[in-house]
Amino acid sequence: MKTNGMVIWLTGLSGAGKTTIAKTLECLLLERQLNVEVLDGDIIRTNLSKGLGYTKEDRDTNIRRVGFVANLLSRNGVIVIVATISPHRLVRDEMRAMMHNFLEVYVNAPFAICESRDVKGLYAAARMGEVKEFTGLDAPYEAPLKPDITCFTDQETVEESVAKIMQALSCASVWDDSQLEPAILEYHHDRRSLPARQRKASPTKDAAYQHASLH
Amino acid sequence: MKTNGMVIWLTGLSGAGKTTIAKTLECLLLERQLNVEVLDGDIIRTNLSKGLGYTKEDRDTNIRRVGFVANLLSRNGVIVIVATISPHRLVRDEMRAMMHNFLEVYVNAPFAICESRDVKGLYAAARMGEVKEFTGLDAPYEAPLKPDITCFTDQETVEESVAKIMQALSCASVWDDSQLEPAILEYHHDRRSLPARQRKASPTKDAAYQHASLH
Repeated sequence: MKTNGMVIWLTGLSGAGKTTIAKTLECLLLERQLNVEVLDGDIIRTNLSKGLGYTKEDRDTNIRRVGFVANLLSRNGVIVIVATISPHRLVRDEMRAMMHNFLEVYVNAPFAICESRDVKGLYAAARMGEVKEFTGLDAPYEAPLKPDITCFTDQETVEESVAKIMQALSCASVWDDSQLEPAILEYHHDRRSLPARQRKASPTKDAAYQHASLH
Repeated sequence: MKTNGMVIWLTGLSGAGKTTIAKTLECLLLERQLNVEVLDGDIIRTNLSKGLGYTKEDRDTNIRRVGFVANLLSRNGVIVIVATISPHRLVRDEMRAMMHNFLEVYVNAPFAICESRDVKGLYAAARMGEVKEFTGLDAPYEAPLKPDITCFTDQETVEESVAKIMQALSCASVWDDSQLEPAILEYHHDRRSLPARQRKASPTKDAAYQHASLH
């Protein structure tokens, strides 16, 4: 089913949970028979950016390519989920300015948590000096100043994070609101008075993210 | 309006008329309110392949990137018009194998005609040695062996070339056939008994291509 098109841009450290959120969100949207594509960092590096490295310039070029493709898709009614570190604020803002329907989602987990997850073994490799210019270690991550949504993946379950995004898509009229499942609406109604930052960290929930990331 | 999705891959020498056909076709499809995107060689070089050169390997990488994007769009119901030299048969065949709905259009004009048009001044530059690895001169162009459509742009008007493609799209049920304008159907009915190669070259029609290419 065609929608009004939207780019959901997940930014955050390696291991923060971007891919996990992207895949879970994709499943929910596909269940509704909506047109959806995930542009995951690794897929993009293979298909659009082979040869680019991890210098500031190369990273920004990579992000602009992702943005070019995301824009082509979203203006044709596709919901595009971008899952890539995209560490530089200026380029993310450039992307927002380019798109007609853009949702910046900050997938926020503390560096130490991401390092302890280390799904791809990249943190260990970076600590050993085998990976250079690693985001958060010897390359900067510029956190969003005013993200549309923040997912605290060390404090929320994957489902809670994804529900926030689903709610935002509903509010943005990306699809007919009547399609939104009552359970999700109810969840959001209950949570409205409780800012996310007030919730305590939950090792169990963080473990759920780790588990999900491995599959 | 969403369609079943299709990739129309225009291949041919520089100056053969790919961009002219692409733009004219795009206008016709947009008039019908269909979802359409043109991936033109120059646009792609700027947005996806900056840094790539014109060696065999770099050209093939460029084409695979175009194919990656075209596939993403077409599987979401977009009619994608690719206009790029794409000189290597093997990679074009790889693209065909990857796509679910693929139309190879050979935009065929003799080298001498393309050189005489020289819309971008590239032939002159190549003759002067200022441009290296120029297709048809010191880099090969492998013409399609079994293209779905051949447009003889030195013998047909732009409208005639585009009508061939529109007819093929109609036959492929890319959209509801009742949307096809009676004039185009009639034109095709009249031409069916006259193979394109039997028609004589027409300097006037070729001039029309040159004129269209400049705008």
